[in-house]
Amino acid sequence: MATESLVEEFSLTELDRKAIDTTRVLAADAVEKVGNGHPGTAMSLAPAAYLIFQKHLRHDPKDPNWIGRDRFVLSPGHTSLTLYLQLFLSGYGLEMEDIEALRTWGAKTPGHPEVGHTAGVEITTGPLGQGLASAVGFAYSQRRMRGLLDPAAEAGTSPFDHTVYVIASDGDLQEGVTSEASSLAGHQELGNLVVIYDDNKISIENDTDIAFTEDVLGRYDAYNWHTQRVDWTVTGEYVEDMAALDAAIRAAKAETSRPSIIALRTIIGWPSPTKQNTGGIHGSKLGTEEVAGLKKVLGFDPEQSFHIEDEVLAHAREVVTRGAALHESWNETFNAWKSANPEEAALLERLQAGELPEGWTEKIPTFEPGSTMATRAASGKVINAIADELPELWGGSADLAGSNNTTIDTAKSFAPERRSTDSWDTSPYGRVLHFGIREHAAASIVNGIVLSSPTRAFSGTFLIFSDYQRPAIRLAALMGVPSIFVWTHDSIGLGEDGPTHQPVEQLASLRIIPNFDVVRPADANEVAYAWRGMLELTDTPSGIVLSRQNLPIYDRSAAGFRGAEGTLKGGYILAEAVLDGTEVTPDVILLATGSEVELAVEAREELATKGIAARVVSLPSFEWFAKQDAAYREEVLPEAITARVSVEAGVAQGWRELVGSAGEIISLDHFGASADYKKLYSEFGITTEAVVAAAQKVVK
Amino acid sequence: MATESLVEEFSLTELDRKAIDTTRVLAADAVEKVGNGHPGTAMSLAPAAYLIFQKHLRHDPKDPNWIGRDRFVLSPGHTSLTLYLQLFLSGYGLEMEDIEALRTWGAKTPGHPEVGHTAGVEITTGPLGQGLASAVGFAYSQRRMRGLLDPAAEAGTSPFDHTVYVIASDGDLQEGVTSEASSLAGHQELGNLVVIYDDNKISIENDTDIAFTEDVLGRYDAYNWHTQRVDWTVTGEYVEDMAALDAAIRAAKAETSRPSIIALRTIIGWPSPTKQNTGGIHGSKLGTEEVAGLKKVLGFDPEQSFHIEDEVLAHAREVVTRGAALHESWNETFNAWKSANPEEAALLERLQAGELPEGWTEKIPTFEPGSTMATRAASGKVINAIADELPELWGGSADLAGSNNTTIDTAKSFAPERRSTDSWDTSPYGRVLHFGIREHAAASIVNGIVLSSPTRAFSGTFLIFSDYQRPAIRLAALMGVPSIFVWTHDSIGLGEDGPTHQPVEQLASLRIIPNFDVVRPADANEVAYAWRGMLELTDTPSGIVLSRQNLPIYDRSAAGFRGAEGTLKGGYILAEAVLDGTEVTPDVILLATGSEVELAVEAREELATKGIAARVVSLPSFEWFAKQDAAYREEVLPEAITARVSVEAGVAQGWRELVGSAGEIISLDHFGASADYKKLYSEFGITTEAVVAAAQKVVK
Repeated sequence: MATESLVEEFSLTELDRKAIDTTRVLAADAVEKVGNGHPGTAMSLAPAAYLIFQKHLRHDPKDPNWIGRDRFVLSPGHTSLTLYLQLFLSGYGLEMEDIEALRTWGAKTPGHPEVGHTAGVEITTGPLGQGLASAVGFAYSQRRMRGLLDPAAEAGTSPFDHTVYVIASDGDLQEGVTSEASSLAGHQELGNLVVIYDDNKISIENDTDIAFTEDVLGRYDAYNWHTQRVDWTVTGEYVEDMAALDAAIRAAKAETSRPSIIALRTIIGWPSPTKQNTGGIHGSKLGTEEVAGLKKVLGFDPEQSFHIEDEVLAHAREVVTRGAALHESWNETFNAWKSANPEEAALLERLQAGELPEGWTEKIPTFEPGSTMATRAASGKVINAIADELPELWGGSADLAGSNNTTIDTAKSFAPERRSTDSWDTSPYGRVLHFGIREHAAASIVNGIVLSSPTRAFSGTFLIFSDYQRPAIRLAALMGVPSIFVWTHDSIGLGEDGPTHQPVEQLASLRIIPNFDVVRPADANEVAYAWRGMLELTDTPSGIVLSRQNLPIYDRSAAGFRGAEGTLKGGYILAEAVLDGTEVTPDVILLATGSEVELAVEAREELATKGIAARVVSLPSFEWFAKQDAAYREEVLPEAITARVSVEAGVAQGWRELVGSAGEIISLDHFGASADYKKLYSEFGITTEAVVAAAQKVVK
Repeated sequence: MATESLVEEFSLTELDRKAIDTTRVLAADAVEKVGNGHPGTAMSLAPAAYLIFQKHLRHDPKDPNWIGRDRFVLSPGHTSLTLYLQLFLSGYGLEMEDIEALRTWGAKTPGHPEVGHTAGVEITTGPLGQGLASAVGFAYSQRRMRGLLDPAAEAGTSPFDHTVYVIASDGDLQEGVTSEASSLAGHQELGNLVVIYDDNKISIENDTDIAFTEDVLGRYDAYNWHTQRVDWTVTGEYVEDMAALDAAIRAAKAETSRPSIIALRTIIGWPSPTKQNTGGIHGSKLGTEEVAGLKKVLGFDPEQSFHIEDEVLAHAREVVTRGAALHESWNETFNAWKSANPEEAALLERLQAGELPEGWTEKIPTFEPGSTMATRAASGKVINAIADELPELWGGSADLAGSNNTTIDTAKSFAPERRSTDSWDTSPYGRVLHFGIREHAAASIVNGIVLSSPTRAFSGTFLIFSDYQRPAIRLAALMGVPSIFVWTHDSIGLGEDGPTHQPVEQLASLRIIPNFDVVRPADANEVAYAWRGMLELTDTPSGIVLSRQNLPIYDRSAAGFRGAEGTLKGGYILAEAVLDGTEVTPDVILLATGSEVELAVEAREELATKGIAARVVSLPSFEWFAKQDAAYREEVLPEAITARVSVEAGVAQGWRELVGSAGEIISLDHFGASADYKKLYSEFGITTEAVVAAAQKVVK
């Protein structure tokens, strides 16, 4: 349903042209009023954006969440007006007063587009590169959804076929994350991805020749993309040849075996009389005189601001009627699909409701105590145990599948069939993702997947490389999308690979990202609950932090021990203070996470022999614990017990809040080293003995 | 002096071949002994590494810091044995016992190469992409040093001409930071950069076809690189055609107007009998049987381990004699240059001593109180004021020059002359860097510059985009190189651009990187001292965090106020408690950084009217403050005064340690919004009134 264009032949009416020019003038007005913003590209991209929204994008402004819609991603979020003005023209609910309120408190038109805040915005963009990289994820999820729900349909006939349109800027094309994601897009042969690259040759430091002289389309050829060039300066004059752009978009859509990029040569800020084609018009208001000049050039009344002719608006808003018709016709196809595929239809209904299947938690394994298991291994077992029950769950690693334990063993890999290797059997509808050594794109793509579909995707890498993913993690948190990040090799416990690979500050640095939940389970059974907790999150991304080394599986029936379900509360009494076989009020509380819980548990026993009653609190997730009510938190960490010791093989930051001024923090505030991990723990003083000594100190 | 090869004609003797095979066997032995590591590429890259170290690299193993040497960067640090074994063969001081000690506590042979730890290691590598990206910085600094010291010399005749050799892996080529840096390298026409890409088509998930099918050399053509392919599988057999590789290296060196990449098709782990060409040999020991098999194939005694024939070692170590001769002949050129260029020679001497010029601090401006100035503006003024005095200082922005205030106004831009634009006058020896919209490469390149030369380089971007740079920042800290990062737009104070651009958790997340110093000055005069402090650091990278908005310049002669020199101590009494015109013991201490110091200062006045004596402590650098002695810290933050309030427009994490359990933290623990910054401060409760109220609360 997605490959053909909406209209047979391209044509633009006078009203179309007027609508385009009106958006240019409104862009200038809006930035002028608030005094800051980015008018330049909003002016020069107005024709391309109008063409997409009016002639190509299959959308229904009255139902911005219609699952059959095409998607539009504005990667250079700073030119948010480009999008806002099309949403205004198309009838998404933005009105002139919203344009007037640009970049002010509470407005639907913030500086950068924010998904969930403004109807019609598909993704929050601004940090360059993220939009295009996540758009690759949009294209992934389209193919996966089709594979889940309607795999046998011929190309272009499924209600789940749609096109992802992207506008990208010079900045997007320079960012490394775009390179990573674009290489994957070519590899994946994402024929439903159409990128219009605004090749305006101007960025903030003016002429991009100062730093960006590569052959962009040559690079995209090398990535296996379909490349085209539309040069509006080719005549020597600036002529916005809309027919040429339209033809290129049609050709891009007709090419279904590769993603497409169209380098569209524009002049930024055109036709602003004196500021077009300068870096100055990128991020500053034009000034009264220049705005007036612009209006004159375009035949608008320089005395009028925030004005659109009724006829122009009515014409543009015909997209509502067309959208309704498209939606209606899609409904027929969709209903036919529903009738023919009741099982898939039920699955879709569940996914759209954001529900997990009834009884799914029964599939989550429990692990017998008495043995040891790396939490990464437990994580792999959990994923595989629930995979059949949760077809929406998919993911993979940035070339560390075996180390991250992120492979669903029974599933095919997500890639065109010709990409199969000796190790991996591929299918375009596969479920195991292979990101290559591209951690940043992995995170951006997962964000795009989770944002644009009701599937749940995860990516895996070593915890240390969360540093590479941070911009994408932050955007997931800001957007409130439940991406899942699997991070293994979570401390000096990885041993010999040494300080370049040993996370020290990563745990603390991830915990401070607002609306991002970090979970570091202490044993295999905490891992099981951690996955449950993460999958139950609907508007918060999360990361699970896992050990390379084996850890004991605690016997929850031993004296003082409690069940692993406390994991869901983020922090819980793993082992109550016990003296002479009886639970007693603790003299001291030992707090720990992950692999260091073992040290706390051993210290508790050692302290008991000295007559000191120690409670062990496992704190897999600071964020989940903070969400509990005060009574529960007081139960776990009673205010009266100020004798507290924390132990974690990472920087101290964050622990003072939990242990208080009187508490002791056993931490690692320097880089690691290359050696056997037991040697490292011992050399760096992160030991049972250190916990015992600290406990004795604070109990005094 | 750098472009010709060391030998006229290529030839390899039997001893050369034996030396190469010995390194393969030793690689297998070393990993086998410790039980983990990466033998595969150490085996298959042995010929290429030997060829570089024995036939091309101009080096003197007895003086690893010889400034005339060529540089070698092993980007895939996991194959550290590739380097260690050449350092062993070349006579850098590594002996067989060091190879035997691989990856153990205290060894000179850690899991990944660490600069400063092992003689001959030029850069710490491991996190993929960083080595190659920083190698681009190596090539930058070579050109800059030449420009500073010997600009008129003909190509290849200066003692400051040298070649940068890089071995890079599939992983390096996939990472986005490499794409960014490679695009810049082509733009900069870095003719002295020679990259050998180990195109072995295997990574951890086995056949790279599962995720990496782009045309790598096509991409590098698009970046304006000189590209060559040497395929050792071309005959159908695996033939290590060293003459072909040698010829390609010669051709790469002969091409002086572009960087070169040679795609060398190897078979990982060759000639391991059953594990060659598998992901399994990448990161695991071979096993006893396979090691024995390898030795048999190569004609070695399977019973012997860690053995090298004396004759082979002696042959390989002839590089010491050759190196001494090269160094000697270079000394002649160098001495001639010294005599002819006494001024430049004095500069070089100062730089090599790691000293700043005498009296340079007199050039640092002071700013008159009474007006307001954004700290970013003050930073730009400081940079420009000291630029003439410090020719070693250079840097620029990731396309935000005007916003970051990072431009040395009187200097040319660093780029080939043909890259000049209307805005920027370029010279290959220029001093203003333009990274384009490539924050990550900017940081990696600055690391490479500072690591490979005694110059001091800085990069600029918005603070929010420090997230993109984090892997490189961490490596700078781990290596102990004094890179400088300029980060502006440091809080919600940037206003309308909204939450995608407003740092909230970045300050805290940067403070927790070990050996990294963050400085957030409160006014223009603190900025001046901040730059002084950063430039005086010799083995610690640092970041200066600057406001977009104007801030008051404090009148240090007002009642209670102290001088800005306290900035150098990281924290100091900016304004002592004053009641009725007299300095008194404070009732409460108000702690703040950067723009929020203004709120503390206003609160102090307000509190005085209520009879509460408040001291304001400005804490521009937590790290510098922590380095002060206990007595000084007690003077600033007396233990007895537990009534403390902190205010910073970022997450609370980190402040509890300073304000104590009884203190109040005014922070921002959620994302920002798009509006005028004053509105944001007010809506988010980061106000003078909030500080006053918190102070009243804690004083009670």
